[in-house]
Amino acid sequence: MSEPRRNAGPAVSFQPPDRILMGPGPSQVHARVLAATARPTVGHLDPAFVGMMEDLKVLLRRAFRTENDVTFPVSGPGSLGMEACFVNLVEPGDTVVVCRNGAFGGRMKENAERCGAKVILVDDAWGDPVDPAKVEKALKSAPKIKVLAFVHAETSTGALADAATLCRLAREHGALSIVDAVTSLGGVPVEVDTWGADAVYSGSQKCLSCQPGLSPVTFSARAVEAVKKRKTPVRSWLLDLNLVLAYWSPTGGARTYHHTAPVNALYGLHEALVMLMEEGLEASWARHRLHHEKLVAGLGRLGLSMQVAAPYRLPQLNAVRVPEGVDEAAVRRRLLERYGIEIGAGLGALAGKIWRIGLMGQSCTARHVLLCVDALADTMRG
Amino acid sequence: MSEPRRNAGPAVSFQPPDRILMGPGPSQVHARVLAATARPTVGHLDPAFVGMMEDLKVLLRRAFRTENDVTFPVSGPGSLGMEACFVNLVEPGDTVVVCRNGAFGGRMKENAERCGAKVILVDDAWGDPVDPAKVEKALKSAPKIKVLAFVHAETSTGALADAATLCRLAREHGALSIVDAVTSLGGVPVEVDTWGADAVYSGSQKCLSCQPGLSPVTFSARAVEAVKKRKTPVRSWLLDLNLVLAYWSPTGGARTYHHTAPVNALYGLHEALVMLMEEGLEASWARHRLHHEKLVAGLGRLGLSMQVAAPYRLPQLNAVRVPEGVDEAAVRRRLLERYGIEIGAGLGALAGKIWRIGLMGQSCTARHVLLCVDALADTMRG
Repeated sequence: MSEPRRNAGPAVSFQPPDRILMGPGPSQVHARVLAATARPTVGHLDPAFVGMMEDLKVLLRRAFRTENDVTFPVSGPGSLGMEACFVNLVEPGDTVVVCRNGAFGGRMKENAERCGAKVILVDDAWGDPVDPAKVEKALKSAPKIKVLAFVHAETSTGALADAATLCRLAREHGALSIVDAVTSLGGVPVEVDTWGADAVYSGSQKCLSCQPGLSPVTFSARAVEAVKKRKTPVRSWLLDLNLVLAYWSPTGGARTYHHTAPVNALYGLHEALVMLMEEGLEASWARHRLHHEKLVAGLGRLGLSMQVAAPYRLPQLNAVRVPEGVDEAAVRRRLLERYGIEIGAGLGALAGKIWRIGLMGQSCTARHVLLCVDALADTMRG
Repeated sequence: MSEPRRNAGPAVSFQPPDRILMGPGPSQVHARVLAATARPTVGHLDPAFVGMMEDLKVLLRRAFRTENDVTFPVSGPGSLGMEACFVNLVEPGDTVVVCRNGAFGGRMKENAERCGAKVILVDDAWGDPVDPAKVEKALKSAPKIKVLAFVHAETSTGALADAATLCRLAREHGALSIVDAVTSLGGVPVEVDTWGADAVYSGSQKCLSCQPGLSPVTFSARAVEAVKKRKTPVRSWLLDLNLVLAYWSPTGGARTYHHTAPVNALYGLHEALVMLMEEGLEASWARHRLHHEKLVAGLGRLGLSMQVAAPYRLPQLNAVRVPEGVDEAAVRRRLLERYGIEIGAGLGALAGKIWRIGLMGQSCTARHVLLCVDALADTMRG
């Protein structure tokens, strides 16, 4: 940053450009959700607001397909939701099995280690699904595994994990499961109770098509019990379930102040969930599947192929191989400049090798598919 | 929560009630800021958005009166900003002096302990300012103090600390200072560079009159150096300055993804800061002082007195003694029901003993003062 600007910056309002969001998130936010966020701010303990919080928890339970009492949005991005799961369930000296087949599995490892855990890694190639056989072997490799952690929908690669099987394996081996559902919630089936998952976190800005900044989480009774039985304090004051639930899920006593909730962001999440329920969860999953298939077909006509094998492909996050000799960054730049379309670059092991095309929530329509395929055809020519 | 609602909640949009916000925050949010937040979401790596981020850092430096490079909004509430300061600067085994004269000093102690620090407490009565003589004694009481932590504007009591003196004492004793400026920023002078403060955090929803959910922070070069020299990893992945700065303040290399920034909330903070600069910082401080004096005079005519001695009173957070025999909760309920006015209750040691009347940012006008005094006169009668 150049010196002269430092304390003499422009004090003019910011007007964002007109974009079509087809990257790995944020997805397009509907006008109804934007309008909800702009409603007048009220107090975080206002009786009307507290009523909205209760409705929001109900809506989140429906989205997560769970009866878990402890289901609420963490006041921060998906990475803070991830941290909420790890800091509450993991204590120093615990052993944690982490599945890593992309960037977010790597982030889980980082979190577990910063909680003082011993991590057993189960590595799979970026773009491959998590291999349940390897997970089972890892779960058997140590006497007491506290947690099995895996990413349901790897946003960095577009691969889907078999969450039902992995959560079952965790239970069979007496471990709790932590599941990253940031990109899956609303786009593909997330069945928290059927799976028997213990701690699941998501993000507002993917298939829920809300503004980024909130992380819905849900904890099973078993997980809440484990938090209550901890021998050491939770390392984060803000994320300590023992404290935050006095605000989000008071039992017995009155609701008390913990932190100032992000009031307007919560209006937006509420409206986004109302819209999801109006459409219906199954209808939303079917829509994501349908347009994904159309996108893959369209890309195929351009000679483009997918990174992930068909059975494990996420409909909402399409990892597309960059053809030999194509400058992937130049194509993305031309898409943005000519058409105002944002798609994502590859991360980590797949940097430079793939594009990530999101069909998430409001960004998953026939219009988006058509536009993206045609615009790619044009911009790949130069 | 009653059973039948659980998974069959109402899926209708939420319409907040019409409120006048005169509690301890959130304060009234201006229509311009609400409108900014509702602008279309763009990607967190979009070149236009990145330009806005740079402007936002410039605006925050002006608000904090600092040249600190590392000045940005943490993606969460003020409590997360507090946590960002502690987890980066405090390592297990460090000794930290914490000044506690209200609820938020207590929260600082919690944070320091969860970082593994040995805490030396400097207690003052709730409503009294921090006593620098006690602080000096505490700083001399142990061979190596890593951090002195104090609250500049105690939101729970309305007392102002002498930040210049406390930061100077910290430097003289080779300690870093952590300063809570959640309620002070924009309302009274916050002079980060003049004080020589090392880590300062604030909140969006007080005198900046932005929606709640963001925590502006600033770190001195000395503080950043201390983070780089740590012997142990920062306990929080999301808050680790070594990682988050690759997104907010890349030096040398390209800006890289760390977490998905709360795009729309940042639009709002940017607009709120633009409005603050249009008014001018000094003008904003003077406005808070002026209306505070009018409020104290008006309350005096009702026979109400202030909890905090005049020299230490925060203009933006007025702790008013509840008269003998008055049901304080009933008055607050009547204010809300009859007039839609929110004021705050006392916390902790002052619960039931005070009301907290906020005159923060857009909630600090002649209209607010007049309305509040008249409405209190009415509702105290029954």
